[in-house]
This record gives sequence, C-alpha cells and structure tokens, in this order.
Amino acid sequence: MTGAKRTVEVCDETLRDGGQAEGIAFSVESKLILLQAFDEIGIHFVVGGWPFSNPRDIEFFKRAKELDLKTANLMPFGSTRRKNLPPDEDPNLLALVDTGCRYATIFGKSWTFHATEILRVSLEENLEMIRSSVDFLTQRGMNVLYDAEHFFDGYRHDAEYALASLRAAAEGGACRLVLCDTNGGALPSQIAAAAAQVCEAFPDHTIGIHTHNDSGTAVANTLMAVEQGVAHVQGTFNGHGERCGNADLCAIIPNLELKMDCDVVGRDNLQELTRVSRLVNEMANHAHNDKAPYVGRSAFAHKGGVHIDAARKNSLSYEHIKPETVGNVQRVLISDQAGRSAIIEKIESDYPHLDKRSPEVQRIYERLKEAEQFGYEFEGADASFLLLAQKAMGHFQPAFKRVGFRIIVEKFLTRDMRSEATVKILDPSGAEEHSAAEGNGPINALDSALRKALDRFYPQFQHVFLQDYNVRVLDSQRSTAARVRVLINSSDGEDTWGTVGVSENIIEASWEALVDSFEYKIYKDERERKRNGQQTK
Amino acid sequence: MTGAKRTVEVCDETLRDGGQAEGIAFSVESKLILLQAFDEIGIHFVVGGWPFSNPRDIEFFKRAKELDLKTANLMPFGSTRRKNLPPDEDPNLLALVDTGCRYATIFGKSWTFHATEILRVSLEENLEMIRSSVDFLTQRGMNVLYDAEHFFDGYRHDAEYALASLRAAAEGGACRLVLCDTNGGALPSQIAAAAAQVCEAFPDHTIGIHTHNDSGTAVANTLMAVEQGVAHVQGTFNGHGERCGNADLCAIIPNLELKMDCDVVGRDNLQELTRVSRLVNEMANHAHNDKAPYVGRSAFAHKGGVHIDAARKNSLSYEHIKPETVGNVQRVLISDQAGRSAIIEKIESDYPHLDKRSPEVQRIYERLKEAEQFGYEFEGADASFLLLAQKAMGHFQPAFKRVGFRIIVEKFLTRDMRSEATVKILDPSGAEEHSAAEGNGPINALDSALRKALDRFYPQFQHVFLQDYNVRVLDSQRSTAARVRVLINSSDGEDTWGTVGVSENIIEASWEALVDSFEYKIYKDERERKRNGQQTK
Repeated sequence: MTGAKRTVEVCDETLRDGGQAEGIAFSVESKLILLQAFDEIGIHFVVGGWPFSNPRDIEFFKRAKELDLKTANLMPFGSTRRKNLPPDEDPNLLALVDTGCRYATIFGKSWTFHATEILRVSLEENLEMIRSSVDFLTQRGMNVLYDAEHFFDGYRHDAEYALASLRAAAEGGACRLVLCDTNGGALPSQIAAAAAQVCEAFPDHTIGIHTHNDSGTAVANTLMAVEQGVAHVQGTFNGHGERCGNADLCAIIPNLELKMDCDVVGRDNLQELTRVSRLVNEMANHAHNDKAPYVGRSAFAHKGGVHIDAARKNSLSYEHIKPETVGNVQRVLISDQAGRSAIIEKIESDYPHLDKRSPEVQRIYERLKEAEQFGYEFEGADASFLLLAQKAMGHFQPAFKRVGFRIIVEKFLTRDMRSEATVKILDPSGAEEHSAAEGNGPINALDSALRKALDRFYPQFQHVFLQDYNVRVLDSQRSTAARVRVLINSSDGEDTWGTVGVSENIIEASWEALVDSFEYKIYKDERERKRNGQQTK
Repeated sequence: MTGAKRTVEVCDETLRDGGQAEGIAFSVESKLILLQAFDEIGIHFVVGGWPFSNPRDIEFFKRAKELDLKTANLMPFGSTRRKNLPPDEDPNLLALVDTGCRYATIFGKSWTFHATEILRVSLEENLEMIRSSVDFLTQRGMNVLYDAEHFFDGYRHDAEYALASLRAAAEGGACRLVLCDTNGGALPSQIAAAAAQVCEAFPDHTIGIHTHNDSGTAVANTLMAVEQGVAHVQGTFNGHGERCGNADLCAIIPNLELKMDCDVVGRDNLQELTRVSRLVNEMANHAHNDKAPYVGRSAFAHKGGVHIDAARKNSLSYEHIKPETVGNVQRVLISDQAGRSAIIEKIESDYPHLDKRSPEVQRIYERLKEAEQFGYEFEGADASFLLLAQKAMGHFQPAFKRVGFRIIVEKFLTRDMRSEATVKILDPSGAEEHSAAEGNGPINALDSALRKALDRFYPQFQHVFLQDYNVRVLDSQRSTAARVRVLINSSDGEDTWGTVGVSENIIEASWEALVDSFEYKIYKDERERKRNGQQTK
C-alpha cells in the first residue's frame, strides 16, 4: 500500500532521445529487449521512436505490437503539422496514427523566437498548428502528450505566449502538458518558478517535465518541478541523449521514491534499477559510467582509508542509502590510499592469520604501490591482486613454467588475415608441452594455444571461458608505442574473476592477464579441494 | 569592472578529493602542473593534499613553494585533533603547520551520530576538539577553513547541534565555515533551507558549500546554496571524487558567471575552462567525458537532423550559451540520423558541387550506414570518412597497393619480447617495396615497416607522427574474439586528422587505420599542391 504518497509517472525517452546521443544507435532487437525491461520495471510510458523521420522505427512499432506489456504505454514521437499543410495531409502526423498506438507525443513551439525564426510562421499560426495537430490525433482516437519545446526559454522571454501555447494544446485535447527545457540551459529555481505557475494555471491537467543536462542540473530541475506539483517526469536511463544528455531516470526514480516520498515504480521494482541500467548500456554498446549516482560501479565503493574504516563500522555513515535498495552493492577498493585495511579485506579469507601490522601486509603494500606506478589497476582484477599478494609473501607456486610463445599474423593480397600462435610450457611433471592454434586474432590464437598446452594436466580449462576482454591505452599520446592495460574477466560457471596485464606490447599484456587467469583457476580449485578435504575429516 | 555583481570564491578539491576517485592517482609532477593551471584560470583556493595520511603529498607541498602563484592559495587538508591528544601533540595538525602554507582546511563532525558512533566521544568533547584544533592552527598563524562534515545529515537530525559545531569552529577563529554534504545524499531544497539558516546565523562569516553527486544533484545543490548567500564553493574539475564524484566546477563556474550574475574567475579566464578540464583528465589519465556540461566534446554537438538544420540557421536556437565563452566549439556529427546535411557539411570543401539531392550523396549515405552497422564510427575520424566518401563515389585512387604484411611476436624464457613486422607494397611506379622493422609492440613495428616501405616515394611521412592511438573493444563479452575499433590521430605539424579501423583482429584494425592515415596525407598534399598551382595561374 502506498498510503498518502504522491504518485509520479515516468516516461522513458531512452529509445528516442537516447538514440540521438553521440556514439549510440539501437538496433530494432535491442529496442524490443529494452521496451520489455522498461515494462517489467514499471515504467508508465515509453517513447519508442520517430516513425516519420526514422523509417527503421516503423519496423520496431510493428514488432512491438506482438509484445504483451503490463504497465508501459508504448508511443511514437512526432511534431505538430507543417505550416500550410492540413493535419490529415501531414505525413508525420499520419505516421503516428499508422503505428496503431493508443498514445502519441508531439512537440511544438512555445518560444516566440522559434515560431518566427525557425518555423517562420506568425505567432497565431503557431498556436493554430498546435491546436489542430493535437485535435487531429485525438479525433483519431489517440491520447496525446504535448511536449512544449523550449518552454523555459519561451517563458523567460514571453510568459504569456508560452502559456498560450499550452492552452492551445489543452484545447486540442492533450492529456499531458510537458514542459521541456530543450537546450538544457535552465537552472533549478527558474524551473521551479515556471512550473509552479503552470500547475496553478492548469489545475485539471497532469503537467510533465523534460530536462536536458547542459547546465549539469537536469536531475535537480526535474525534482524541483515535482515539488511544485508536476506529476509526470521524462528522462532516459543513464542520462543518454543528445549533447550532455537527458535527465537521468536512474537518479530521478530513486530520489523520488526514497527521498521525496513519491510512488513511482514501487520498492520492489526499484531493486531492478541497477540491472536495467546496465542492460541499457549493453544494448547501447556503451561503457557503464562507474560514477553514475545509485547505479554506478563506484556509487558505493570506498577507497580513502578513513572512509573504509568508518564504512565497515556502520555503512550508513558514508552511504546515503542502502545499496541493495537499488540493486547495487558496496565495494572496498584496493589502492595506494586505501592502505592496509583494504588489503586485509581482500585476502583475509585466504590468509586469516594476517592483520594490519603483519610484515607480509607491508610487503604486499609496497609491491602494490610499485605495480600501480607502472599502470596496473587491481580494482577490477581481484585474482591478479591475490597472485601479487602471494608473490610478495613468497608463497606463489606457478602451476606451470612458461618457456615461450610466438605469434604470427599475416595477410597477403585479398586472402583473409591468418593468426597463428605457438606456445611452449613445462607442465608440473617437468614435461615440455608445445602447442599451436589459430584464432580470429592474435590474442584469440594465443588463448587457444595455451589451453591446448595445459589440457593434458589441467582438463578443467575446458570449462573456463573468458567473459570479457578490455583494452585501455594508458598514455595514448605515445601513439602506437603507448602502454596498454588489458583486463580479462573469466568464469568457470561457478565463479568469475578478473585479471590484468600491462605492457607496451598488447600481446604481452594479454598474455600476462591470460596466464594470471589460468594460474588463479588452478589455485582456486586446489583451495576448494583442500577445504573439502578438511570438511570430511 | 564587475559592477554590482556578487563575488563567489572557488576552492578546488581536485588534487585531494579528486585523487580519491576510483582509478585516479596523480603524480607529484601532475599535481604541480595542475596547481599552476588552476592558478592561471583564477581559482582562489586549492586543497593540495593530506600531508599526514599521504606522505607523498609532503614532497608536493615542498616543491609547490617554489612556484610563483598569482591567485591560488594552496593549502593542506587534515582533521580535527584526535580525542585525548592535545593539539600540539597531534601529528596530523603538526603536519599541516609543517607545510608552511598560509591556509589550511580541517574537517570535523557536525552530526551527533558521527561524534558518538564513529569518533566515540561525547558531544561536548567533539565541540571542544573542533574549537581547540582551529584555535591551535590559528595561533600558529594559519587561516583555517573549517569543513563541517556531514553537515546536512547532522542538521536534519539535530539542527541545534550542527549549528553549535559551526559556532565552535567560529570561536576557534575559522575564516570560512564550509557546509559539506559528505555522503552526497541531500536534495536541492534541503540544502537551500539549511544554507539559508546558517547564513542568517553567521552574518559575519563567509559560508562555503561542498557537495557530492550521489543523488545526481551536486551542481544544483551548490547553486541553491549560493542563492541563499553562500559565497565560497568547493568542487573538483570534471567532478572527479570518491563514489559518484564531487560537484563539478566545470559546470558550477559557468553557471555562476553566465547565468547567476556572479563574478567568479572572470570572463577571460572562463574561456580557458575547456582546456583546463582536458588537462586535468590528461594528468589523471582519465578519458574525457564527452557528455560533460560546457566542456564535453559533445556539449555543443548536433546529431538529429532537425537540430542540425536549426543550429545552422541560428546557433542560439539549440545552444544555451555560445560555446566559445567556455573555450568549447560547436560540432556537427556524421551519423545515420544526421542525414544528408551533415554529409554535405563534412565534404563540401572538397566537393563543392554536391548538394543534398545529389545521387553521390545518397551513395555515401548508404555506405556510411553499412559501415556504422559493422561498428565503424566516424565522429572522431574525419579523414576515414572522406576516404569512404571517395570510395562510394568511385573517386578513390589508392596511392600505393598493399601486397601484404607479416607480424611475428615472440618471447622465450626471460628474454624481452620481440616484435617484428614485414610489409610488401607496390609503389605508384609499380615497383615492389619489401621492408622490415622492429617495434615496442606489433602495431609499432607495423607502423615503422610501412613508413620504410613508403619512404622512397613519399618522403613526407618522415614528418607525420601519430599523436594518439585508442582501442575500443566493441563486444567485450565475446572476449578475445571480440571486434575492436582502433582510432588513430595523426599530425604533420600543420594539420591533424583522425582515422578508424574495425576488425576482430586488432592488428588488422590498426593496419586499416594506419593505411587510411597515410592515404589521407597523400591526398591532402596533392590537394594542397593543386590549390597552390591554381593560385599561381
């Protein structure tokens, strides 16, 4: 039960505005997957695309009809009719009707300057274009959300006219009047003042807010509008959108739910927020923003020594919410600054006898600092960190001896490129294994050859797969002689672990991360075996 | 002259809080470079580090003394004294004095919960710790900024006590009382209400604000506090900082200067903002956030077709400020959505006879879409885009014919890794050139071998250098068989140009981007030669 909570509805613009972000393009399949995810998490409206100007979106609307959505109203996006064209001849409005959706969003001009300078129509004609376009869609049975483009700029220059443009949409039958800060230039207090006046002028309408982040205040602008009575918020997952992006729903939704006593998607759905945020980035082929409020990998990560001690004592002391509320987790980072507490935290399950004052921990700390200086980072490479700790303590027992490897990559004329790797190792019995393999590229070939060489002694590698392979150029200004850091994530179905390698040579960096991954797997299996052995005693 | 403008001073926390961000560590040299940059751009205070808990910072303070700073007051950071330790025996306070700086910042507790649960002292003793610590530093001739940690949480739970903690600092002689939202959980209206009351309670003190971005509202929180009378703002360049980061000065400063009529660093210095923002990321070895408000590469980039047409008509129609004001530039992006206008914009200087309706432009558009589907992105690769356009129009004349190449990378036992490349081409006369070179890695060797092979015919390549080399793994889940995109930036001292290659094989992707870079250089020189020839006619 939500009791006396205010209800605020969410309209997702990821598939439309988000797709206008630099470097982002969603395939039809990705859009279908995301639409379902938004539906499952309780989003009320999803703007699916712009059928008239993006013909690829037509197919999306067609296929989306086959989905059985629970909460989300899918709708197309378009503009008011063109000047000198009756609504029923405007191809953009007709394309909206053709989607067969129950809802549609159209945008129109609230700023006198845009009417006269961009559209080049009279102020009166602009109002008529708004009224007749909304009316046309309403007559065809659609519920129309009206996006008042550049509302806040318009309001600043001519408040009366900006309000008149909303009135025109209301007269046409619009079910939502959405105030858009299209160029993202407005600040929170401006938004609050204008939104308050609109809510007062249209007491019977649901007023919406749509902001962009060009001033760095999109989330706050949205919240300020809600405080004034706005009950419909538009934004995108992860803030994707043109220029600096749209208001980030991943910050807005939890702020409203957890701090402003609103009922938005509900507490259960909120726990899916981090997962859906990551899914959107996967579909967008976009790196997840570690620093993202609520859903970033670093959002509840502690690095400074003081903070770690305090956070271990009481997590609310340095965390504004419990990470689980939004499906995220607390993390403790290994780094120079974190000091010995963090080292202990990382290795205590393997080495429970160590404490902050142990000389071993000091040696690990020294080795860690050296490695970080060279470009290593262990924040995503726990397995490599454990091996480093073992090396620093003198405990490390290599599971096999690397003799060497050779990689040949060649391309002649129009033939496909060929990548071949040979690997030579000594296995634990001292026997030499010499293997060769081909691959899609040099690293893939090297990976295959190393597995072959280890196969006789360590058949468990058949079940290890590399989930993730990432390359970061560390000093890109040094160009092709730059140092690179390779991060690999491996899994055996039960556990996943991260390893890292750094070198000027990408092959060497990858080789290092690969070898660490296999070494860790062998160590882990051995540890498992010992623990099970102890249990049976 | 600033006239009746309000003055707001800025305190930069990049070197301290910024260095606590995940994945960021500044060297002493980097800190010295940044300190000078902050000074040149007119920042008033710079927190340099934490000499007691980070001994590496002691060297920084020593070397910083040799700099001749104009506006920036460099200061160390520390905490109030430990319980049961008199100030003059507290090593953390003594370390502050030892820096020889005129200013220092110390933080203390304003939240009863933190005093009793984290410090484990009585509420009265906590106030005494604040008062005596500030007093001790003041007696030693330092001006003390007092950071009231967790002020807004403290204020919410016990406003009287939170204000009492500020009073203790004021009694000790603090020159600034800084309200910190340490866990980043506060929302704009809460900040405004608390800041208003503090400004009223301490009319003779300069009140400061220090926010974190855990709710996605750090910038807005800062602006709201300034509206209430706060005149000292703390933040970091690019918002670097623990978890979700600190308030981003690159958004706060222009918002205050351009939209809130404050005098902060002055309009001239403001034009350096984008440059300094990039410098910070270079020193932090951190990718620049393209979406960053004001200073991001995409902040004034236009992609949607409608926006481009409008932005070309009148830039203020879709831009909240003129990009030059903050040293940034407008950009038009090549992409699926941008459509034909953007293609024309990119190639019109080479092909002035083409317009939106030309069949050539249609062919380019088709080819572009195909390439984007495969993973190419031309937003940073104008040179590759021009070559793609030439290929689509059937104009492209390769300057040399690639016969093939071979790369061998090998490592045996403890010997260093060896990377050798051989390249075979046919030069414009049809003669075969076969060259070999070694390098730091396979790509570097390939680059060197290709230059050697081209040297006899194109000696100009001696003056081309690769400025930047970046690798992006496109589908990292496919692991070592993932497709990668390589972006190269080249320069000949006069121009710089970007090229791109995509393949499952990193060597092939790099080879493509390298060949494009050389092809473009040859085309560019030829175009130059023709233009000069025309001028002399």
